[in-house]
Amino acid sequence: MRESVLKPILWTNQELILLDQRVLPGTTSYLTAKTMEDCIFAIREMVVRGAPAIAITGAFGIALYLNGLSSKPTFSELKIKLDKLLESRPTAVNLKLAIEEFSSRFPESDYSSFSLQKMQKGAEEFALFMLEEDLENNLTLSKNALSLFPKSPSSLNIITHCNTGALATAGHGTALGVIRSLRDAGHSLTVFADETRPYLQGARLTAWELKEEGIPSYLITDNMAGWVMASRKIHAVIVGADRIASNGDTANKIGTYPLAIVAKHHGVPFYVAATAKSMDFRIPDGSHIPIEMRKEEEVTSFGFLKDAEGKPLLNIAPDGMKALNPSFDVTPASLITGIITERGIVSPVNEENLKKVFG
Amino acid sequence: MRESVLKPILWTNQELILLDQRVLPGTTSYLTAKTMEDCIFAIREMVVRGAPAIAITGAFGIALYLNGLSSKPTFSELKIKLDKLLESRPTAVNLKLAIEEFSSRFPESDYSSFSLQKMQKGAEEFALFMLEEDLENNLTLSKNALSLFPKSPSSLNIITHCNTGALATAGHGTALGVIRSLRDAGHSLTVFADETRPYLQGARLTAWELKEEGIPSYLITDNMAGWVMASRKIHAVIVGADRIASNGDTANKIGTYPLAIVAKHHGVPFYVAATAKSMDFRIPDGSHIPIEMRKEEEVTSFGFLKDAEGKPLLNIAPDGMKALNPSFDVTPASLITGIITERGIVSPVNEENLKKVFG
Repeated sequence: MRESVLKPILWTNQELILLDQRVLPGTTSYLTAKTMEDCIFAIREMVVRGAPAIAITGAFGIALYLNGLSSKPTFSELKIKLDKLLESRPTAVNLKLAIEEFSSRFPESDYSSFSLQKMQKGAEEFALFMLEEDLENNLTLSKNALSLFPKSPSSLNIITHCNTGALATAGHGTALGVIRSLRDAGHSLTVFADETRPYLQGARLTAWELKEEGIPSYLITDNMAGWVMASRKIHAVIVGADRIASNGDTANKIGTYPLAIVAKHHGVPFYVAATAKSMDFRIPDGSHIPIEMRKEEEVTSFGFLKDAEGKPLLNIAPDGMKALNPSFDVTPASLITGIITERGIVSPVNEENLKKVFG
Repeated sequence: MRESVLKPILWTNQELILLDQRVLPGTTSYLTAKTMEDCIFAIREMVVRGAPAIAITGAFGIALYLNGLSSKPTFSELKIKLDKLLESRPTAVNLKLAIEEFSSRFPESDYSSFSLQKMQKGAEEFALFMLEEDLENNLTLSKNALSLFPKSPSSLNIITHCNTGALATAGHGTALGVIRSLRDAGHSLTVFADETRPYLQGARLTAWELKEEGIPSYLITDNMAGWVMASRKIHAVIVGADRIASNGDTANKIGTYPLAIVAKHHGVPFYVAATAKSMDFRIPDGSHIPIEMRKEEEVTSFGFLKDAEGKPLLNIAPDGMKALNPSFDVTPASLITGIITERGIVSPVNEENLKKVFG
């Protein structure tokens, strides 16, 4: 399978080079992260975005922090740093799980036995492992998805939301990975990509990946999906996930929930593509997922366009207009036809079936 | 009741002065239409928009055409002009009805009996009558809407889509007129205004009218309405209409249909506010309403931002990305709780009840 040309995350010479996704597709520029603070900035300001890519960036952030030290931090010094990292973006569970996984390798009970050097090496290896594992999982889940579609080459119309491709992950992607793999399996795809306001990940990133892949596609505004489903046969809606609760309720980019309602209304299958790293079995349902509220100016202006002082360049609303900016919404399990994972398809979506697959 | 300070349409000294809604709220500028061609340009390019305002602009366009002549046009010369005017925007029925109403005043059978002067006078009077009638109808329908809400002052959360205010009509507005009147009736409103991509009538125009009125409100992106309904009590969604078929199916700004589906899912009442001028009893249902497809660049860029040569200033998608741009969608009658009109409330929405009210 092909991979995207541009890598969002590159680890080289003890630095993390991040493709600046805020200015794509117009500009290709990179941010070099040399400290954990640089990584936190990159996550919070969405230089890098997408739950898997955020977690990997965070893991490299830990490595950068440890590499910058000349003596081993105390357990509580480390904990303060990790807590700060965790706060950078609250909704996706991947970053949380990555931090916990790293912490479990250097537990408080055994902390005195680890040298700084061992921790530095461990952090780097962990981050590199995550990078590799994510790509592998995306390829596997995309292969698993093929069973949901006809075996013989078919014309398929697919709607997707936000960006879940190579730019959001270690490569290939989740929902967009499935789309790539469907094309590679010989299907004739037409993709309808939601632009995904306010941050336009669909228009700026997904459209760019689709064009690069040569997959026939149309950009639509988020509010056009109803018209698209009413005016032609849509075979599936496929989206990613930022956190999946025990019962299958799924937090994903704002707009996923109404898209799922509209798909249900039209009898269109609605699939979530995600790896085990998006599962949060510690919460019973979606009501326990914290929804990140971002700056109002991302809605009242085109937030990614800023002047030298970081002020929005293009206001689209009158001065002083208030706005709401929830970055995610929660789609209840009842609206999800299936969850496509590296361990197989979960359908119907419920706690029992999720535990069977991820048990 | 208060009226908006800025008038979108002003007839004075034989010219039509149109507030340029393409550049609001950042810039307040006017286009002076001196010919029917100027009016067609203003309608097609959305200097003026909103079904009622388009119809009124068209009516003044007829007056400008006749005023510019030194001898009476033949019946077929006039017809060619009127057909061209009708083509400027196809979905809203108001312009079509206005042209037919004007034509019926100067029918072919009797055409030789009218002098140019009489036709000039007739056209101007007709346009001025439409202006006055529309304002009056909006005030009446807004008053009728009060019966749908509690009598005693209440806290009401309302979602609206696109712009249906003073800028879209002769004044006051339809859906936004209802919102104004609810406030004037003593209710404490909070309005959630969809930004309404691609043309951002909500962010640029509705937000501006709401702020001018001092009505507490939040701008949201179109894909946030699901989250808003899931996270707080919403008392009603109120939208306008561009064309209502015999059975109540309603064409309105793109995004209205998925909003209606999401409202139904949440048990939120979904109201259409419109005058008789939006009714088209000649078509049985929404499948007969022509949906205007606009330029792709309104989706792939911010279409209202143009350089001196009329090219888009801000592309948000990669070069060459295709887009779809249906300007309207059709909401089936089954998703509409009631249609609020100057003749009363139509509910449930069906042919029988519509004929009873408009019979």
